[in-house]
Amino acid sequence: MRTHFCGLIDESMIGQTVTLCGWADVARDLGGLCFIDLRDHEGIVQVVAEPSAGTAGNAEVIATAAKVGYEDCLRITGTVRRRESVNTRIRTGQVEVVATEIDVLNKAEPLPFHAHENPGEDIRLEYRYLDLRTPEMQRRMRTRTRLVQSLRRWLDARGFQDIETPILTKATPEGARDFLVPARMHPGEFYALPQSPQLFKQILMMAGFDRYYQIARCFRDEALRADRQLEFTQLDIEFAWVEERDVQDTVEAMVREVFREVIDVELGEFPRMTYAEAMRRYGSDKPDLRIEMELVDIADLVKACEFKVFTDWANHEDGRVVALRAPGAASLSRKQIDELGAHAAKYGAKGVAWMKVEDPGKGREGINSPIAKFLDDATLTAIVDATGAQAGDLLLFGAATHSVASDFMGALRLKLGRDLGLVQEGWKPLWVTDFPMFEWDEEASRYVALHHPFTAPAVDDVEDLKANARTAVSRGYDMVLNGNEIGGGSIRIHRSSMQSAVFELLGIGAEEAQAKFGFLLDALKYGAPPHGGIAFGIDRIAALMAGTESIRDVIPFPKTTGGQCLMTGAPSPIADEQLAEVHVAVRPKA
Amino acid sequence: MRTHFCGLIDESMIGQTVTLCGWADVARDLGGLCFIDLRDHEGIVQVVAEPSAGTAGNAEVIATAAKVGYEDCLRITGTVRRRESVNTRIRTGQVEVVATEIDVLNKAEPLPFHAHENPGEDIRLEYRYLDLRTPEMQRRMRTRTRLVQSLRRWLDARGFQDIETPILTKATPEGARDFLVPARMHPGEFYALPQSPQLFKQILMMAGFDRYYQIARCFRDEALRADRQLEFTQLDIEFAWVEERDVQDTVEAMVREVFREVIDVELGEFPRMTYAEAMRRYGSDKPDLRIEMELVDIADLVKACEFKVFTDWANHEDGRVVALRAPGAASLSRKQIDELGAHAAKYGAKGVAWMKVEDPGKGREGINSPIAKFLDDATLTAIVDATGAQAGDLLLFGAATHSVASDFMGALRLKLGRDLGLVQEGWKPLWVTDFPMFEWDEEASRYVALHHPFTAPAVDDVEDLKANARTAVSRGYDMVLNGNEIGGGSIRIHRSSMQSAVFELLGIGAEEAQAKFGFLLDALKYGAPPHGGIAFGIDRIAALMAGTESIRDVIPFPKTTGGQCLMTGAPSPIADEQLAEVHVAVRPKA
Repeated sequence: MRTHFCGLIDESMIGQTVTLCGWADVARDLGGLCFIDLRDHEGIVQVVAEPSAGTAGNAEVIATAAKVGYEDCLRITGTVRRRESVNTRIRTGQVEVVATEIDVLNKAEPLPFHAHENPGEDIRLEYRYLDLRTPEMQRRMRTRTRLVQSLRRWLDARGFQDIETPILTKATPEGARDFLVPARMHPGEFYALPQSPQLFKQILMMAGFDRYYQIARCFRDEALRADRQLEFTQLDIEFAWVEERDVQDTVEAMVREVFREVIDVELGEFPRMTYAEAMRRYGSDKPDLRIEMELVDIADLVKACEFKVFTDWANHEDGRVVALRAPGAASLSRKQIDELGAHAAKYGAKGVAWMKVEDPGKGREGINSPIAKFLDDATLTAIVDATGAQAGDLLLFGAATHSVASDFMGALRLKLGRDLGLVQEGWKPLWVTDFPMFEWDEEASRYVALHHPFTAPAVDDVEDLKANARTAVSRGYDMVLNGNEIGGGSIRIHRSSMQSAVFELLGIGAEEAQAKFGFLLDALKYGAPPHGGIAFGIDRIAALMAGTESIRDVIPFPKTTGGQCLMTGAPSPIADEQLAEVHVAVRPKA
Repeated sequence: MRTHFCGLIDESMIGQTVTLCGWADVARDLGGLCFIDLRDHEGIVQVVAEPSAGTAGNAEVIATAAKVGYEDCLRITGTVRRRESVNTRIRTGQVEVVATEIDVLNKAEPLPFHAHENPGEDIRLEYRYLDLRTPEMQRRMRTRTRLVQSLRRWLDARGFQDIETPILTKATPEGARDFLVPARMHPGEFYALPQSPQLFKQILMMAGFDRYYQIARCFRDEALRADRQLEFTQLDIEFAWVEERDVQDTVEAMVREVFREVIDVELGEFPRMTYAEAMRRYGSDKPDLRIEMELVDIADLVKACEFKVFTDWANHEDGRVVALRAPGAASLSRKQIDELGAHAAKYGAKGVAWMKVEDPGKGREGINSPIAKFLDDATLTAIVDATGAQAGDLLLFGAATHSVASDFMGALRLKLGRDLGLVQEGWKPLWVTDFPMFEWDEEASRYVALHHPFTAPAVDDVEDLKANARTAVSRGYDMVLNGNEIGGGSIRIHRSSMQSAVFELLGIGAEEAQAKFGFLLDALKYGAPPHGGIAFGIDRIAALMAGTESIRDVIPFPKTTGGQCLMTGAPSPIADEQLAEVHVAVRPKA
């Protein structure tokens, strides 16, 4: 239907006859002389309809052009010529096309909104096809395509085998909530959509595939936080016959190469940090290293002070007392400091103490803080020294259990980093390693897996693990970039006895384990090689590369936080006869 | 963990120390001298544990080797040396590895079956990880991976953009039955799994993407015929600004290139055939051209004969009377001919008449047929002439409606082709075009779409289509290979008025159309370019390339015809509390 793309017409084509297809981006009728900006996915070129010496002076073409409206679909034939008034803002700005034929392929009705408006995300999602036509959204989607292409190319070249695993699979109520699918052929039974291909990829290693990958759709029926989706895309990788560094070094090289290729960024070698160090220094297992601020432990300095909150937690076996120095933030108002406290409260803080350092040389005189009266001079000085506070700095203090204090002080660090403009430009990747194997769930009174129940412990001995479960370290690892966990993986358990022991520690009895994971326990008995892998969040990496905060901007048809597709109207009610076919009914409201 | 792959050890490594990982394929203990065939995904190498001048005469290594069992996971270090008795059946047969260290990474329990046995498909599927370890299954899966890789490479190089579309989407009860997913956040509402990304890919064209592809998972809750799966994989392609030949020529070139690359087969240029011609000559819209036999219409010859079945259908406006010549099949017994009749009956035949041609020169004398007595000499001769029957041939006759006669005679043609060994070696692709737009569904007393309701008719005018719906031809096309429809596509409707007219002809009222497809009708109004595309069945193409009849052989974790995964046990019952969370209940049995 066309000979060239609009956005690629250039001076080398001057004098040529071309046929173009595209949308009318702008159309102006100057009375007997019309200009149309014709747009396709490559860009825009100016088309002119003007009187000529040809057939009837080109009257028909001018008449058609005069009636062209926004977003009409056109096919235009014409001759390329040099433009008199060059437009430097577009790639084709040196030339224009003088139309000899204009074919209106599809007339557009007046649009609900215009490309250069932002009508709000709900309207954008309802008319997603109009939103996606904007150059910005086209660029974002192209970044995503190039990311996936680059990853595949890298993995294909290294013998990773792209293998598909099922979407209709078995419910395994460990982890997040499953999406369920009633099975028509098996009344009362259900398939579940996979939360990840975890077990299948492990089984593939036991099935003799050496290195596997898949760009896999995963599903979690969780309350949608601001930037989660019910379905998301994961680059899933697994290797047989490997240890941690085999996996990490390989995929680090991959990520480096892909960032170079897609957005021309050099990530360099990734620093490595244990979970313990990350929590200690940054209060997070996915620290944003673009912010230099670090947490400072001061429990040792306040064990015997008169501020009860400090002394209680400083002397508690699982307590933590932490200071955070916010450079230049002494100028914050009481109201602003209260807001910081409210932010910390969302992460479990009961309160956040503060201290404005006006002159660190003046001791108590140089300090403005409601808790100063509970601290003796030596303690005040020790705190100022430990944090390296300068004149004009604000110190914030958190005291709670190790985990809660780390969480909310880590959250404050992030907020202050952003608010104070202390986030450096650029890219800060790292590996976080040596995660705890288990967390103790007080409520359920049992251990829960910090990664997932298939992660191998660092110890190889079942009895050793059982005896030291509380302090056991796993062979899990996360890849973190600018404060986002972009990849997470582990060496997996490859022995049936160890897997059973871990299930037992997680409170999954032998019978339940057999019912849910019997095939895995069996497979581990019949020659399972050591194996491990990792999964990367494609949506998040694409968003980072495209320079947007929201993963919805790199998903062509995302759902809202309410789980709805505003374009198609999913989900929707279903006729009861159709439900009867799959043997379910809607429950009456309670 | 290893320095080399087992299957790649060769003479260039003689004298080197290597570390290998793999499964013990075979282990033989000859008393103080042990042989282990060590296998990884690349192949097998022989390992020897023998007394040496080294530490304790290698006693520990020999002792370990003596205890190795089938499918134990081993890591072995040793020295490569030339083998005394060369094994020409394996790639590494010139060499062996003399072990200096054997590490048993994971001991295997006795297997439920052995690789060289075929324990039946159910057992194979239950222990899929063992089944997949066989070289044959490894080869099949690799063929599939290479197919997909090759397709992607071709499309990536030509600017097709790989874009993901949702799996949790809206139910559209046109076509096959949807899988439903209860929406937890919207009590009483459901998502549906997509039968194909059809509407999303069309929307993508309206959204300004020029050429799209996706290796997409699709879902149809249909009764499983022998070789269907509940979920299957499709290469989905769509182009904006195109006509039929743009799509066909592009993807034909792609398929040719991919067959060349993956299995070194040259398909040549694809012949083209209309639907009408395919039905007339082969009784099928996906003719297997490897079989030369063709149907011969004889209605004109039997309009006035005395065989009532013939005359009835020969004079019926929608009737068809067809002969099929089966070369050399006059030797078939009555029983065998009856079996052919039974086969035809499955496709709607009420009966199949037959005629053994013993000597075509002898007229009636040379013919053995129960219907000969109803046919005069001239008719007999005319039939023999029309079919080109030779001595020793069998003629079969079908008479029914055009569609039923074509179906069962087409089915007989296929069966005879196979039974008589008349299927030629090699690859016979073709395009089938000019499909009818609609079929009349007697039962529902309305039209149904032969492709799908978004296929454009050949006529551009709404009134013209409405007036001639019964005979209207669509802009759909199928790619057929060796009797399999491997791809199907069309130019789509790109105008809202035409789409509404087609919905109306299909009995979908304006209100229903708006409720189900409102977003499509809207999108068609706001600047929808002409567009079209195609979808290919990846499972089927992979099976053809791998030389296996069943698509289950190229799907790593397929389901049975009963829709079950015998390995994981999906589907399975779900606790009522979990169902309550998503607001459904199992219906009591009726």
